[in-house]
This record gives sequence, structure tokens and C-alpha cells, in this order.
Amino acid sequence: MEFTRRNLFKISAGAVVAGAVGRLSMAADDPLPSWNDGPTKKAILDFVHATTDRMSSRFVPESERIATFDQDGTLWVEHPMYSQVVYCFDRVPAVVKAKPELANVEPFKTVMSGDREAVAKLSMEDLFKILAATLTGMSVDQFAADTKHWLEKARDPRWKRPYTELTYVPMTEVLTFMRSKGYKTYIVTGGGQDFVRQYSEKAYGIPPEQVVGTAGGTKYGYDKNGRPFLTKEPKLLLNDNNAGKPEGIHMMIGRRPFAAFGNSTGDKEMLEYTKAGDGERLAMLLLHDDSEREYAYGPAQGLPETKVGTFTQALYDEARSKGWVVVSMKNDWKRVLG
Amino acid sequence: MEFTRRNLFKISAGAVVAGAVGRLSMAADDPLPSWNDGPTKKAILDFVHATTDRMSSRFVPESERIATFDQDGTLWVEHPMYSQVVYCFDRVPAVVKAKPELANVEPFKTVMSGDREAVAKLSMEDLFKILAATLTGMSVDQFAADTKHWLEKARDPRWKRPYTELTYVPMTEVLTFMRSKGYKTYIVTGGGQDFVRQYSEKAYGIPPEQVVGTAGGTKYGYDKNGRPFLTKEPKLLLNDNNAGKPEGIHMMIGRRPFAAFGNSTGDKEMLEYTKAGDGERLAMLLLHDDSEREYAYGPAQGLPETKVGTFTQALYDEARSKGWVVVSMKNDWKRVLG
Repeated sequence: MEFTRRNLFKISAGAVVAGAVGRLSMAADDPLPSWNDGPTKKAILDFVHATTDRMSSRFVPESERIATFDQDGTLWVEHPMYSQVVYCFDRVPAVVKAKPELANVEPFKTVMSGDREAVAKLSMEDLFKILAATLTGMSVDQFAADTKHWLEKARDPRWKRPYTELTYVPMTEVLTFMRSKGYKTYIVTGGGQDFVRQYSEKAYGIPPEQVVGTAGGTKYGYDKNGRPFLTKEPKLLLNDNNAGKPEGIHMMIGRRPFAAFGNSTGDKEMLEYTKAGDGERLAMLLLHDDSEREYAYGPAQGLPETKVGTFTQALYDEARSKGWVVVSMKNDWKRVLG
Repeated sequence: MEFTRRNLFKISAGAVVAGAVGRLSMAADDPLPSWNDGPTKKAILDFVHATTDRMSSRFVPESERIATFDQDGTLWVEHPMYSQVVYCFDRVPAVVKAKPELANVEPFKTVMSGDREAVAKLSMEDLFKILAATLTGMSVDQFAADTKHWLEKARDPRWKRPYTELTYVPMTEVLTFMRSKGYKTYIVTGGGQDFVRQYSEKAYGIPPEQVVGTAGGTKYGYDKNGRPFLTKEPKLLLNDNNAGKPEGIHMMIGRRPFAAFGNSTGDKEMLEYTKAGDGERLAMLLLHDDSEREYAYGPAQGLPETKVGTFTQALYDEARSKGWVVVSMKNDWKRVLG
């Protein structure tokens, strides 16, 4: 355990309460209790030790300790469908109510019909029309209110729980552990930056300013009382996937991460960029190989194909050849959800 | 003085050294020693007290304490010319050396001629060509190295000191004071984000990830050894001036500031946006009315016209009518530079 200002304070405060220090020491013995012992868990512990122990040759000053985490499929469940896409479909009735002329225009007509088979066949172009109509055109404050309301009432179809409860316990342990060692934890997601920022603090302890995501422009203007507000524009500024992840990290953080965590081909460039830095770097990919406790998909290692969170065999092979750590959900995690 | 974890630790560590606590208390008595007593200084102290004292009806939780600072003319000297523009002109010979065909192309030919009168007459279009040629096309790492080298050797023509030493002592006191009270301090500048990030930590204690500035896109690629790198592209993503400041704040921080500091018409929208939030908000504008210790320019209040950091009478009147605080460099500051 490193004696930082923060944990020194924790210890001195804890000492006031009888027994508290004992409990703290127990917790400190294993910061990752939901991980099975083995090389994967050891890789995380070794990396954090090597970069935060002042005696280590690979010590990293606290100000440079940046760790980036993909969200969908890395920090929480992404199957059968990204939660933000569910949000967009759920918003269509409200959009059509506000603009009744859309009721007879595709793809809104199909979505309103409730014909699931027809909805499943919508093209990417149609999907983008739905995203544009449900994610832009409103004020930033209105979008925040709509999102917050949806997050409170929406339930995942399998677990019947709010999406924000479907976070992976082992990963929240990694977040907490790394922060306790002076790492600044960032989400770097292909999901919408404004969307994820609504719950990142509550779900992960990650504040809005540490969320990098796909981002559109906003437009500054004034309401009829002269009060300024920002409107979400259908203008893409950052597509935070693939090469967009290191580009977004440079734009929003301005430093190369020392550790990066992902689970799909969209994270490949972020991991490459992270590992290309000097000194000790950690790159990890989560393989969803646990159909019982969560889902199994790849197609790496013969797992079923998927369009949501694709993990190709090529990515798996690159990971193995370059010393990136592949986490097996089935074998490395004692538990998955809280 | 609020008892946060950080200053509790400071105090307990200080107590080990005889007399240290006494000195700390003295410093705590006046966190803004370079400010003259009066309504301006009081406005800052009152604001910070109102938003950080748990007993206050206008208390703001620590996670929401965001303060944004324009840089040029607010945190450091911007006259006679923005330092980044000086950098760009200084870089022209190296650019022409790398691409000799530019020697006979305008505006590079004029810059290389050394004819100051002709250079002063260059159009905005010519200026943008110089900015594009000197700020894009190279790797992010190369740009950082070039900038760092220039910052070490360049000297301001009046004070013969590095630009990074021309920061305003009263403003660095505000930064330090606000951070000691749990505020996260950000630079929000019309200057180049990548440029300012090279020295913000050293000059102001503001890390790169807390610098929002005018930003261009980057492009991810691989060198001949397969090592990934980012190239600075001539593609503007954020023009962080005027309405671009609140837009940039939303993009990069995702929260509305509680306090904002500026000095020119380019900061107007940031201050409006800040003040439009609920609860206690602070908006401040620095008026350069001190030709002796620094410079005097407006044209507000009959001060000389300028194109560098224009502070119009309309902005001055808006400030007065809306309760924004106007800082007089001449009357409010005991000293200007360190």
C-alpha cells in the first residue's frame, strides 16, 4: 500500500473509530475481490504496483496517471442492444408527437408500427435518421432531463433492472482501485458523450468532464427572455470509435493513457496507442465468453458472431502477440453483476 | 478556512515542523495578498465563501465547482501580440527550410523578407495560411517538442523574459485560492489547445486535460515501424472564441462553470453562460488600464483601441448592468508580474 495523502487521511480518520483500521487493512489486502486469482488479476496488480510504487523503475508521477475505459461491453452490459439505441427507439413516439408530420415518414412510420421484424430490418441510414431525430434539435438541458427520466424508468429485458445497475462489479473494483492509487479514470466510449455523462458519476464515480464519447456540436443562442442556452446540433465533431478513440483522447485529455481497457474491435486503436507509449503500459480486452452469467459473443475463439461489440479472431491474435491481456469473463471473474 | 481532506493533511504535516502552522494561518488570513482591499477583492472572497461554506444557502458540492479562465490578457500578457502568433512567425524559416518551394510563395516570402512594415500589413487570409503551415501537418509529438524548445528560448520584447514568466501574480493567487477551496480550474482560451497545454501545468498548475482551446482534428496513422502516431490536421473542430467558448465548455467539461474570468469581447458569451446558471455565480472581466506596469487598451472607458484583446464600451456597459465584476488592473492590483 502506498502512503498517499488521501489514504493517510483515511487511516488517521479510521483510527478514531475502534476497529476501523483493521477493516481497512483487510480491504487493502485484496483490492480486487471479485477477480479469481491468476495471471489476469496479477497483471492488473503488477501494473498498478509498478507504476505507483516510488521505488519502482517504472514509477509514473501522479499527474500522468491516466486510465481509459471503453463503456459498452467493458464496464456494463451491451447485449442484446446498446442502451442508448434503446433510448433512441423509446424516444420516437415523443418525437412524432412533437412533429406529427413524421408519422407517415420512414423510418419513423415503421418504428411507430411496433412491427419488430420490420424494425430489425432497418438500414444503417434509417438508424442514423432515428439517432439524429432523438439526439439533436433540443436544448442540452432538455436532453439531460429526457435522458434522466428514461434512465429511471427503463429496464433491461433480461434482468428487469435499470441499465445503470448492470455494471460489472470486477470492473468497478478496478476503477476504485486505480483511483485509490492516484489514477484519473476516464470513459472513452463510442456512445454519445452527452448521454453517458448523465449517469457516469452515479454508476462509476466518473465525473462528466472525464467522459470522452461520440460528440456532436452545439449552438449557442438566446431564448425569448434573453437567457442563453445550447442546442444540440446534427453535426458530428468526434466519432469516438476505432481511430477516433486516440484522436478523442488527444483532443479531450491531451495525454497518452498508461492503461486502457476495451472489449471490441472499436477499441483496438486505443489499446495500440496506449501501448506505444514509453515505460509500463497496460492494455486489456474483455472477452464475453459467459453465456450463463451474461452473454457469449466474439467471433474470436469460436464464440457466436455479433454486430454489437464484435471481438474478431484477428483482434484476439493481435492481443496475444503484443502482450495485451485478454480477460475471460467466465474464468477470471468470481461474479459479474452486483 | 474550510477543513477539506487536503488542507487537514497540510495542517497535520505542518504541525511537525515548529512554527509551520503559524505561517499557514497567516497565509490563510489573506489568500489574495496582491489584491488591494476593496469591492473587487471582496467580490471574489465573498463568492468563494458563499459557494464553499457548508452553512451557506448557496453552497455548491465540490464536484460541481468549476471555474474557467480565459488565458491571453486574463492570466498573462497578450500585448503587443499573442505569444502563439509570435511562435507561428518564428516558425516560418523552419517551415520554408523543410519546403523550399514556399520561399517564393506569399505570405511566406514577405515573412522571410524581414520587412516589418509589409508583415504588419498581411491580411487575415495570409495570417491563416501562416497558422496552418506552422500549426498543422506535423505529428503531435513533434509539435510538442517544437513548442517546448521555442518556449525556452523566446523572450518578450519589453521584459526580456520568457513568456511563461509573464503571468499575472494576482490571477495566479485566484487560481491557487480557488483550488484550495475545491474548485477545478480550467483555461478556456481562443489560443490553440495543443499550444497552451505545453506550459499550462508549469505556468498555472493547470494540467493539460483542463485546457479547453481552439482545437483542430488529428489523424491516427502508423510510421514505417508500425508504431502509431497522431498528425495535426488543418481541420478546425472548435473555434474557442465568443459563442465557441460555452460550446467548448459543454463539449470538454460538460458542466456549467460557477465562475468565469475574461478580459475581452471574445469572453462575453462565456460570462453570460456562466451567470445564467442557478445559484451564486461569478463573472469577472479584467480591464487593462495600466500603461505603466503593463498596457492600457479598450476602447472601453476611453482607453486606446486595439485589435488584440478588444474590450468594447458595450461590453463594459453590459458588465455593469448585469453585475459582472470589472477588475481595474491599475486600482485593484498591488502588483502585476512576478
